[in-house]
Amino acid sequence: MPAPRAVPSAPSDLPVLRDPAGLPTLPPIAEPGQPWQTIDTPALVLVLDAFERNLQRMQQAADRAGVALRPHAKAHKCPDIALAQMTRGAVGICCQKVSEALPFLRAGVADIHISNEIAGPAKAMLLARMARHARISVCVDAVVQVRALAEAAEREQSGLTVLVELDIGQGRCGVADADAALRLAERIAAQPRLSFGGLQAYHGGIQHVRDHAARREAAARAAERAGAVAARLAAAGAPCQVVTGGGSGSVEFDLASGVFTEIQPGSYVFMDGDYGSNEGVAASGLDGGMDSGSAAEALRFEHSLFIATTVMSTAAHGQVVVDAGLKSMAVDSGLPWIWERDSGERAGGQFGGGRRSTRLAYVAANDEHGIVRPVPGAGGEMPALPQLGEPLWLVPGHCDPTLNLYDTLVGVRDGKVESLWPISARGLSR
Amino acid sequence: MPAPRAVPSAPSDLPVLRDPAGLPTLPPIAEPGQPWQTIDTPALVLVLDAFERNLQRMQQAADRAGVALRPHAKAHKCPDIALAQMTRGAVGICCQKVSEALPFLRAGVADIHISNEIAGPAKAMLLARMARHARISVCVDAVVQVRALAEAAEREQSGLTVLVELDIGQGRCGVADADAALRLAERIAAQPRLSFGGLQAYHGGIQHVRDHAARREAAARAAERAGAVAARLAAAGAPCQVVTGGGSGSVEFDLASGVFTEIQPGSYVFMDGDYGSNEGVAASGLDGGMDSGSAAEALRFEHSLFIATTVMSTAAHGQVVVDAGLKSMAVDSGLPWIWERDSGERAGGQFGGGRRSTRLAYVAANDEHGIVRPVPGAGGEMPALPQLGEPLWLVPGHCDPTLNLYDTLVGVRDGKVESLWPISARGLSR
Repeated sequence: MPAPRAVPSAPSDLPVLRDPAGLPTLPPIAEPGQPWQTIDTPALVLVLDAFERNLQRMQQAADRAGVALRPHAKAHKCPDIALAQMTRGAVGICCQKVSEALPFLRAGVADIHISNEIAGPAKAMLLARMARHARISVCVDAVVQVRALAEAAEREQSGLTVLVELDIGQGRCGVADADAALRLAERIAAQPRLSFGGLQAYHGGIQHVRDHAARREAAARAAERAGAVAARLAAAGAPCQVVTGGGSGSVEFDLASGVFTEIQPGSYVFMDGDYGSNEGVAASGLDGGMDSGSAAEALRFEHSLFIATTVMSTAAHGQVVVDAGLKSMAVDSGLPWIWERDSGERAGGQFGGGRRSTRLAYVAANDEHGIVRPVPGAGGEMPALPQLGEPLWLVPGHCDPTLNLYDTLVGVRDGKVESLWPISARGLSR
Repeated sequence: MPAPRAVPSAPSDLPVLRDPAGLPTLPPIAEPGQPWQTIDTPALVLVLDAFERNLQRMQQAADRAGVALRPHAKAHKCPDIALAQMTRGAVGICCQKVSEALPFLRAGVADIHISNEIAGPAKAMLLARMARHARISVCVDAVVQVRALAEAAEREQSGLTVLVELDIGQGRCGVADADAALRLAERIAAQPRLSFGGLQAYHGGIQHVRDHAARREAAARAAERAGAVAARLAAAGAPCQVVTGGGSGSVEFDLASGVFTEIQPGSYVFMDGDYGSNEGVAASGLDGGMDSGSAAEALRFEHSLFIATTVMSTAAHGQVVVDAGLKSMAVDSGLPWIWERDSGERAGGQFGGGRRSTRLAYVAANDEHGIVRPVPGAGGEMPALPQLGEPLWLVPGHCDPTLNLYDTLVGVRDGKVESLWPISARGLSR
C-alpha cells in the first residue's frame, strides 16, 4: 500500500511554472486541405455538398410557393451560414434572443426578426439600438412588453416592427385568440416608434410528430387557427403584413397553407437524429431517402452535420470508448447515431452520402466519454468494433443546442477540409 | 388573408446595413456592486459565501485524512476557482482533456493531471509541450498510448508522469486487473522520458448511488479493488506513488479508505440537482441539511451555483415561461430545480441559504424557453405564479456540462455582484 502523500497547506507552497514564457497555445482544429480523417476531435463537421443542397431545396420550395424564407439562425449561430442563406434568396433571418442577433448584424445581415418575447430593460435597449442600423422586428404577448419596446425605441430614436405572437396550440408563449391579438395590435399601432407587423404563429410540437399524415393534419389545424385570426385582424382594420411561422418538420405543409407569408425553419440546414426520425423529412438515413424516390415529390433534407470523434479506449470487453460525450453534443432529444459514410459509389459519389449504422450504437454519454457497442445482426452475428484511434462520425440528436457547444464549424468537401466557420453566436442566450 | 410577400431571388437584393459604423456591442452581463435582481439573464451565478465554505470543507477533510486534494477542473473550467482551490491547499488540478488544461497552465497552475486516456498525435504533442512548463501526468490503458506519449516527450524533450487507469467497476476505461496494470507499468518505466506515477481508479457510477449506506458499500468494494492492485504492483517492484480517484459523491468514504493517496472531486464546489438528490451530500435543500444536524458528522456541501432567469411570458393559463432553456443548462441528469432564497433569517443571514421550491417546478425545456408550473399543496391549494419580468433562480441538474455553456461566472455576495470570472476552458474538449 503506498504511503499517503504529504499535503501542502500554505499558499507559499503553490507550484510555480517553469519557463512561463513560450507557453503552448491550442493549434487550430483543422487546416484547409487536410483529409477528414486527421481532424482533431471532437469536432463539429459540416459536409458542404449536402449543406448546399439543403439550402437550395428549401429556397426553391419557398420560391415556388411565393412565400418568404427567413431561416432561423438559432439552429446554426453562424454568420457564414446566414449569408449563404441570404445569397440564395432568404429575406433575412430569425434569432431567438437579442444578443444572438449581434454577430449577424456585425456580419451585415440587415433584416433580423427576434421570434420571441423579451423581458427586462437591458434587452429592449439593445434591440432599439440595433434598430438604428437594421430592420428589426420582435414578438409580444403582453401590453407591458409593448410599453417597454416603445420606451426603448423613443430613447434610442429608432423604429421597431412588432409582431403579436399567437398560440396556435403549443401552449408556450403567445396570446390565445383574435380578441387578445387585436388589443395588442392596437396598442402597438398607437405607439409612434412601433409598427404592427403581423402575426407570429409557431407550433414547436408539430415539428416532431413522426407520422407524416398526422404531422400534415396537425400543421393544417394550426395554420387554420392562424389564418382565422389574421382574417379577423384584417377585418378589424389591422391587416397582417406578415404571418410568420413553420419549422423544418412542418414547412412542406406551411408553404402550401395559403396562410403563412413567411417561414422560419432552422434545422433543415443540418438535419439531426430527431428530425431524421420523422417520416418523410430526411433525404438519407434508414428509410432510403432521395435515391429511392423522386426528389420532386417531397421536400427532404440530407444529414450534413456530424460530430467527428475518435476511439480513445478499447480496454473493456465488448465496447469501445470515444472522446465525444455530454460536452460535445446535446442529448435532450436522444443519444447520437453512428454514421456510416459511403465508400463513394452511392449517391453519385457525393461525400455526404451514408446512413445510420445498424451495426454500431452509441449507448451512453458521460461528460467527455461515449460508449459504443456492437448491435447483433439478424442472425445473432456480432459486428466488429472499431480500433483504438479510429475516427467515427456521429449524428447529434438535436442540432441547435449541439451547435451551441462549439466555436468552429469545420466544412468538408470531397473528403477534405475546405472551410473553418466561427459559430459566433454560440453562448449568446441573453 | 394577407397577400404573400414578394421574395427576393438575387444576391443583389441583400439588404445593406444603415450606418454600419457604431454598431452596438453586448454590454457586460453584470457590473460589480449591482444587486442580484438586475443581473441580465440567463446568467450563471455563484454564491461566493457558500462556494468558499465548500472549498474549505473539502480541503479540511482531505487535510484531516492526510490525503492530497486534486480537484477536478472539468466541473468548473474556471482558472479563478482553480487558484482559489490551490491557495487553500490543493496539490494541483485534474483536467479531463488536454486542451482543457491550457487556460489553467496560462493562469499559473503548474501541476495538472489529465485523468483520461488520449488518442491521436496532436494531443500527445500538445501534452508534451505543456510538460516543458509544468508537472503533467496522464492516464493510459493500452501499450499504444504509452508509445505515443514516449515519442511526443522525446520530440519535445520533456518528461511525462504516466498513471495506469484501473477499471474498478465502472466498465468504461482502464485495465481490468493487476497483471495488465503491471505490464503497462513496466512499459512506462522502460521509457526514458516517462515515469510510472501509480494508479487512477475512478468509478463514476458510485457517485450517484442515492442511498448513503449503499454508496458507502459500493465505494468500499471499489477501493478494495484498487488497494489490491496497488499492493500487487508494489510487491512486483512497481510501487504506486499515487492512487488517485474519488468524486464528490464518494469522497467521504475514499478519504477514510486508506487506499487513495489523492482525491479528485469536482462538483462539491457547486453541488447540483443530481448530487443534491444523493442522501447525505447536500448541506441544504429538501432534506434540511446542515442546520438540522451536526456539521461535523458528515461531509456535506451547499448549493452555490444557480442559473438566474427571468419570467418572459405569462400569456398561457396556469404556467409562466422563463428565458433559460436547453442552451442555458444541461438536462442529461434531469430538469433544474427552482430555488427559494431565504429572506435572511435562516442560515445566519447568509445569502446562499435557501431550499428547493416545493411550490414551483420547472417542467419542460425548449432551446431558449423553460416552462414553470405551480405544484399543488397537500390540501390541493395552488401556489401563486411569479409575475412577468420577475427573476427566478434555478439549480441545474448537472453542473459540469452547464458550466460548459457559459463564458462568465457571476459571483454574488450579500445580494450584490462581486466578481465576474471567465470560464476560460469552456468548449475545450479536444
